[in-house]
Amino acid sequence: MSLVLPPDVTQASLERTLDELRGVVGAGHVLTSPADLLEYRDPFWHLSWDDYEAAAVVAPQSVEEIQAIVRIANERRVPLWTTSQGRNNGYGGSSPRVRGSVIVNLRRMNRVLEIDPELGFAEVEPGVRWFDLYEAIQAGGHDLMLSCADLGWGSVIGNSLDHGCTYLPYGVDFGAPCGMEVVLANGEVMRTGMGAMPGNRAWHVYKRGLGPTADQLFMQSNYGIVTKMGVWLMPAPECYMPIWVRAWRDDDVAPMLDTLRRLSMDGTLRMVPQVANTLIFASFQTRRTQWWDGEGPIPDARIDHIARELEVGRWLMRAALYGDEAVVEHRFAKVKAAFEAIPGVEVWGTKTTPQEAAGMPSPAERIQGGVPDLDMNFMTGWYGGEAAGGHVGFSPVAPMTGRDGLKVRDLMRSLIEQKANLDYLGAMLAINARSFVHVTMVIFDTSNEPQVRAAYDTCKLLVTEAAKHGYGEYRAHLDFMDLAVEQFSFSDNVQRRFNEAIKDALDPNGILSPGKQAIWPASMRDGGGLRDA
Amino acid sequence: MSLVLPPDVTQASLERTLDELRGVVGAGHVLTSPADLLEYRDPFWHLSWDDYEAAAVVAPQSVEEIQAIVRIANERRVPLWTTSQGRNNGYGGSSPRVRGSVIVNLRRMNRVLEIDPELGFAEVEPGVRWFDLYEAIQAGGHDLMLSCADLGWGSVIGNSLDHGCTYLPYGVDFGAPCGMEVVLANGEVMRTGMGAMPGNRAWHVYKRGLGPTADQLFMQSNYGIVTKMGVWLMPAPECYMPIWVRAWRDDDVAPMLDTLRRLSMDGTLRMVPQVANTLIFASFQTRRTQWWDGEGPIPDARIDHIARELEVGRWLMRAALYGDEAVVEHRFAKVKAAFEAIPGVEVWGTKTTPQEAAGMPSPAERIQGGVPDLDMNFMTGWYGGEAAGGHVGFSPVAPMTGRDGLKVRDLMRSLIEQKANLDYLGAMLAINARSFVHVTMVIFDTSNEPQVRAAYDTCKLLVTEAAKHGYGEYRAHLDFMDLAVEQFSFSDNVQRRFNEAIKDALDPNGILSPGKQAIWPASMRDGGGLRDA
Repeated sequence: MSLVLPPDVTQASLERTLDELRGVVGAGHVLTSPADLLEYRDPFWHLSWDDYEAAAVVAPQSVEEIQAIVRIANERRVPLWTTSQGRNNGYGGSSPRVRGSVIVNLRRMNRVLEIDPELGFAEVEPGVRWFDLYEAIQAGGHDLMLSCADLGWGSVIGNSLDHGCTYLPYGVDFGAPCGMEVVLANGEVMRTGMGAMPGNRAWHVYKRGLGPTADQLFMQSNYGIVTKMGVWLMPAPECYMPIWVRAWRDDDVAPMLDTLRRLSMDGTLRMVPQVANTLIFASFQTRRTQWWDGEGPIPDARIDHIARELEVGRWLMRAALYGDEAVVEHRFAKVKAAFEAIPGVEVWGTKTTPQEAAGMPSPAERIQGGVPDLDMNFMTGWYGGEAAGGHVGFSPVAPMTGRDGLKVRDLMRSLIEQKANLDYLGAMLAINARSFVHVTMVIFDTSNEPQVRAAYDTCKLLVTEAAKHGYGEYRAHLDFMDLAVEQFSFSDNVQRRFNEAIKDALDPNGILSPGKQAIWPASMRDGGGLRDA
Repeated sequence: MSLVLPPDVTQASLERTLDELRGVVGAGHVLTSPADLLEYRDPFWHLSWDDYEAAAVVAPQSVEEIQAIVRIANERRVPLWTTSQGRNNGYGGSSPRVRGSVIVNLRRMNRVLEIDPELGFAEVEPGVRWFDLYEAIQAGGHDLMLSCADLGWGSVIGNSLDHGCTYLPYGVDFGAPCGMEVVLANGEVMRTGMGAMPGNRAWHVYKRGLGPTADQLFMQSNYGIVTKMGVWLMPAPECYMPIWVRAWRDDDVAPMLDTLRRLSMDGTLRMVPQVANTLIFASFQTRRTQWWDGEGPIPDARIDHIARELEVGRWLMRAALYGDEAVVEHRFAKVKAAFEAIPGVEVWGTKTTPQEAAGMPSPAERIQGGVPDLDMNFMTGWYGGEAAGGHVGFSPVAPMTGRDGLKVRDLMRSLIEQKANLDYLGAMLAINARSFVHVTMVIFDTSNEPQVRAAYDTCKLLVTEAAKHGYGEYRAHLDFMDLAVEQFSFSDNVQRRFNEAIKDALDPNGILSPGKQAIWPASMRDGGGLRDA
């Protein structure tokens, strides 16, 4: 059988490596056939090009097995690419940056190791999905809410490590993770923060340690394989109230963001709202063909029509209040008055309880109630339908001001419409009171190769154009990860060279996820690293 | 003149180094005389031993000067020790870990570079004190509150880098800092997070970057010299209400902590309360001699007497509510009912406004209102009076439960009373809803050498005894920094060796604050670092 080879590795050496890996995890947990590997490819990137194809998938079941895998990879100089569930869709799915890498998939490590109802945290393994943790909380009868991502099939750890957004109060500034266990590139097991002290029960409750704190160093990086993580869970409040804010004019997004900033900074809203445009909401529940069969992107008049038909407006914000009923009522009145001061804007909400969230009809209202599902995945079929839908995310960060909202919208829309000839679907995620991530869903039909290529090419153009205006990505697809990091060029890209210096120190053979976040090991780059003093 | 020499540096070489430093900052900003250096010694550690004596102090005024200093130190292999204001009292003050280091004091870099009232942040240099930033906010007429430390003379950056506590809502989990500029050991200037992109205005509003986030790596470490930092400022709410919770029985601290955890986890209290014992409050306003002239620590009956006389109880919690008046009133009723369910416990508060905080008589009520002062420094004189007062902090972290509160209290009190023959002054700082830092103020008379030695010896004993029970320090005095870090021994102290590996990569000559947080450069340690795979 012909294998996809990583750089500088022979077929014979790779075959021996795979045999050794089979010895560690069992033959059934090393996959090499094209059919088996299909599931681990970028789901929207399977046309004629194969830059991000893996050699194999290995699925360990324990920390010790991961240690053994890492040791073999060091000996054989075979690059690994770690995934938890591998649902990083829109950013590359399970695919490795370096062709021929062996994917280490952690789905089999799927235990919820602990739920502490008194201190409100869980300890999970990387294979635990939002669905699994939610179910474990319910099964334990705990009155705790999980701040979850939009799609429940993702790994709690995997999503957190990629700075993935969640929406409840602990989603603000990615606040839920606390304390990790990590297998380092040399095979040693480290616990971060207070976990570095044997028997210390503050590991998952205090966010730092004595000395520098490593947790954020293991996020969006390739410095280790995270095998356990603490996740904070919020006590269920008396009242849960999803709220909606609807605007009918495209430029209303500016006063909406300014109002949202004020209400978030003063603590009235404390969670992660999403302000999304008409076509985002249309894609949740309809197909594009239902609305438009003309040439090019859907024009404004037609968008206005969809806005009215679906009653989603030109911009619709989802948000929620949590707390005692009296406080929620006070705050809702405040939110309503503040947004309705913008002419034409409407605000409504449903006062309910966390226990009722699972039964609410809107996926947004379930997600904000901590109940994971998969409904939003429907949007991927906007162009290609269920079989051929695909998307790539372009997601810059901006200060939370109306001025920035308009600037980012105009930049995204003009390039996506004019260069990719696609619709502009934009959602602004208010990651904290002061900044938002503009997730641009560039949706395409994967069976239409020119369209796919135009989508990716336009994203690359967006990376550089956004950087000219001072906007940088919060997360980047494999195909323009290097380009996105290159824009962070202050002082001759010293941040990247700083990351490289740390990479060289922690992983001298460069076996862990080389190229992730443009962090390349010395053997795969020219120069780089920090300069001598 | 005879200089204090660092390891492996000759007098002649050090003199040449100092001449070069004079060339950079001007002769007047390089201090070497014993009289000039006195201010930069540990203020409470100036008896017969001089392990932590500096060779000189150099005070640069710009980033470029710091770059030049770092380059000279690399050439000459002279260790530097960075301080901002150098007010790390109780943990070593300005003193370096390595005798003969040159202190880089950043007091002259004291500009508030920006206050953004719309996005609610400031950008400061390391010499900016809490006093300075507060005054700049007032001078600008901004309706913003500063989460400040207990003593206003400290540097905003310096305090933050040492994980120092502040008390307003942004003090929770050290939430205020966002985005740094750092001079690395090789002299390069790096900006973290979004700051790494030229012209990116999200530097001080979004807490991460693309790729791993380095901010926390520069806290409690010796990896760089932080020259700028963003600090979040909170919009002044309609209502500010300091509240007090008083308990008369020593064991009431257990239900107090359990209640505090519940009220913090459900969001009723969202700031950093302090639960402190009788003698802490007595030390704020009286001298020990007023209460006790017997042998040994003050006995319980006498503590009860003080508790009644000063009306502070055996435990008194300071906290505050911030928000709309209606919300504050609702929450105060809830706080009052919850704590008063503990028999004998009393709760009271003063509903006021942020604008009135500066005029409140209690320093705690000013501090929680964001108004820095120095009143609490009075406590240092509990034994020695103003002239000879001294203290050292022993500060372990614990999960926020009543069980842990009792365990930590009993451990601290028994050892401090029995081994050091000193009073037990304890304050539990609720750094988040799930954990507290037990700051044990070990106060002594600096003119009484046996008492000083007993205090330090007992702290060392506390380090190891606390670790046996799974409690680790959040911050440690120079004199037992290594011992404290040694307790974090999981997997053969891999966390320390991980930190060492990063140190070796970033600072191969080991010139930046060697030994800080037990991170020693290769030249000053045996072995260490990560093992080969």
